[in-house]
Amino acid sequence: MITYPTLLLDEEKCRENIAQMAEKARNKGLIFRPHFKTHQSLEIGRWFKEEGVQQITVSSLRMAEYFSSEWKDITVAFPVNLSETDTIKRLAANLQLNILVESAEAIHYLGQKLTSSLGFFIKTDTGYHRTGIDSKNLSAFETLLEAAKPFPQLQFKGFLTHNGHSYKCRNGKGIEQIHQHSLGELNRLKKIFRSRYLEIINSLGDTPTCSVCENFEGIDEIRPGNFVFYDLTQVAIGSCKSEQIAVALACPIVALHPEREEMVLYGGGVHFSKDRLETEQGVIYGQLAEKSNHGWGKPIEGVYLKSLSQEHGIVHVPQYLSKNFKIDDWMNVLPVHSCMTADLMKNYLTLEKRKIKMMPPLGMDF
Amino acid sequence: MITYPTLLLDEEKCRENIAQMAEKARNKGLIFRPHFKTHQSLEIGRWFKEEGVQQITVSSLRMAEYFSSEWKDITVAFPVNLSETDTIKRLAANLQLNILVESAEAIHYLGQKLTSSLGFFIKTDTGYHRTGIDSKNLSAFETLLEAAKPFPQLQFKGFLTHNGHSYKCRNGKGIEQIHQHSLGELNRLKKIFRSRYLEIINSLGDTPTCSVCENFEGIDEIRPGNFVFYDLTQVAIGSCKSEQIAVALACPIVALHPEREEMVLYGGGVHFSKDRLETEQGVIYGQLAEKSNHGWGKPIEGVYLKSLSQEHGIVHVPQYLSKNFKIDDWMNVLPVHSCMTADLMKNYLTLEKRKIKMMPPLGMDF
Repeated sequence: MITYPTLLLDEEKCRENIAQMAEKARNKGLIFRPHFKTHQSLEIGRWFKEEGVQQITVSSLRMAEYFSSEWKDITVAFPVNLSETDTIKRLAANLQLNILVESAEAIHYLGQKLTSSLGFFIKTDTGYHRTGIDSKNLSAFETLLEAAKPFPQLQFKGFLTHNGHSYKCRNGKGIEQIHQHSLGELNRLKKIFRSRYLEIINSLGDTPTCSVCENFEGIDEIRPGNFVFYDLTQVAIGSCKSEQIAVALACPIVALHPEREEMVLYGGGVHFSKDRLETEQGVIYGQLAEKSNHGWGKPIEGVYLKSLSQEHGIVHVPQYLSKNFKIDDWMNVLPVHSCMTADLMKNYLTLEKRKIKMMPPLGMDF
Repeated sequence: MITYPTLLLDEEKCRENIAQMAEKARNKGLIFRPHFKTHQSLEIGRWFKEEGVQQITVSSLRMAEYFSSEWKDITVAFPVNLSETDTIKRLAANLQLNILVESAEAIHYLGQKLTSSLGFFIKTDTGYHRTGIDSKNLSAFETLLEAAKPFPQLQFKGFLTHNGHSYKCRNGKGIEQIHQHSLGELNRLKKIFRSRYLEIINSLGDTPTCSVCENFEGIDEIRPGNFVFYDLTQVAIGSCKSEQIAVALACPIVALHPEREEMVLYGGGVHFSKDRLETEQGVIYGQLAEKSNHGWGKPIEGVYLKSLSQEHGIVHVPQYLSKNFKIDDWMNVLPVHSCMTADLMKNYLTLEKRKIKMMPPLGMDF
């Protein structure tokens, strides 16, 4: 019985998503270093261990600390936050920690403060233009590596890129183009530098490219994260089918307004996040799925979250379907962006009614 | 020293915002029943007690439970969630609890389950069209009240509206129009029903209308919430000046990209929320404020959050200002929507370095 917004997790679908991606990485001889910012859960992390995963990616040093009790090889895929150098020192002393740098200043700062060995990737911008050194700017790479020379504890690991712009794609062809361009850029860089740095690797791979692309020549490591749950955005991009979405937010129905083809759910911006998806129907914040004996079934066509307040979710319900819904009942909603929804909900309920914990919010103890 | 995204609270500004609104309510003879969904904190709640406040508004039954340790008169301003009838029974047995109804079905359901006395407002739609009975639909009000007659424990409290559409206004005139229309509608309803229900009151008042409007004739109670902190949206609406904003998210600077007039903050969608504000500069997610000896100063013109990822905040920095920022430093960011940012951050740090707790996330104990 659902009494308040509850993030349901279909463990079977989730494990299948993990198994498929692990198999793809194995088949292509790639290191599979999944991004754990999506699920943020030690328990779900263990499902990856069962698939042989030993290295992970996280998005903050706090998240690295949370996972450090069970994982000993962690890349923090975020521009290194020098304000947290004490945390970096503590973690680097106890595990293989890799961070991302994109300036000589950061290298110099860390080199002077660190005694334990610390891996660094150069964040490489191959087209997303959010962070990183432009892949064409060879002199900037040289300057950065020059800055690292006096500090043998700083180990250059290679080039790392994130193709966040693949999220704007709406078909496989666009994703493929972005992927091939990045692959070419990273391979060019590795070719230039590997005579001096024998062990360097190339790391890329967001959920769209890792789900869709087949050619990973010259790439050593992939780091997808969202695929563990997928979501409506990934369906729109073409990364997955809606049947693969492994989480749904169960929300009580609190008001019916058939006169304006709407109903109101207890489930708002503080549960879903205000992340949006532009569709043919306009901007949506989630889509309702059929109820089934175990979890949820297909998305219900035309029944979607059209707006969110703090706690309210306003659902568009075509007139002819309005009789299917009643107050004192609840519905499953597929999220637009599962990473953000999971982060807000802070725990999962499996279809077998088992509660799974996540990393607690900032400022709270683990 | 700020090492990760931290929600700073200027207690002095916050107390001043509370004092001003309390004074306005006193001057106009209104019950001041502030909405606590913005701050979600027992400690900040006590600052309202110092201003004589004894009645509060919340947005969920969970929030009513959280505040029930210190408050004995609570309105849950959300369509009653029948799935939580057990919580309603528990709370109603111990305090004056008021809920919102908008259907005879909900009244019938509650009447059969409840033994303790429970107040109900009829949620009245005076133009926002999110929830409630259309203020013109007299027969629906009659039907609902008829349904309540067999249940003496259900006490009809009056008419309650929320003018959420005032958030779309960008000047005082628009807010005034919405307010006067709602005031007229509620007064018409009270006039019709008060011969039969002697004690009923009219309740309205969001932050824009309560900040801007002066005429509350016929209104008995106001319920603004956001004013406790205000934010950039309220500045854009015209509810406040930017100096009145009482919270800022302090975020470390992690990367500088002067070549594209950008820098990157550690502070993303999981800290700010993805709530957006449309401005002349385009969509923004926050605006940087000058640093000062104590807290923050004026907003820095032209320096704003232009996009957010999960943990990254991308700031537009005009070329001529780029030298003012460096990594290993941090900046204060005024939020677009303080309710959402506070909800995500889950605690505050006052300028005097005191930590203030909030209600823990769903599924965690108080």
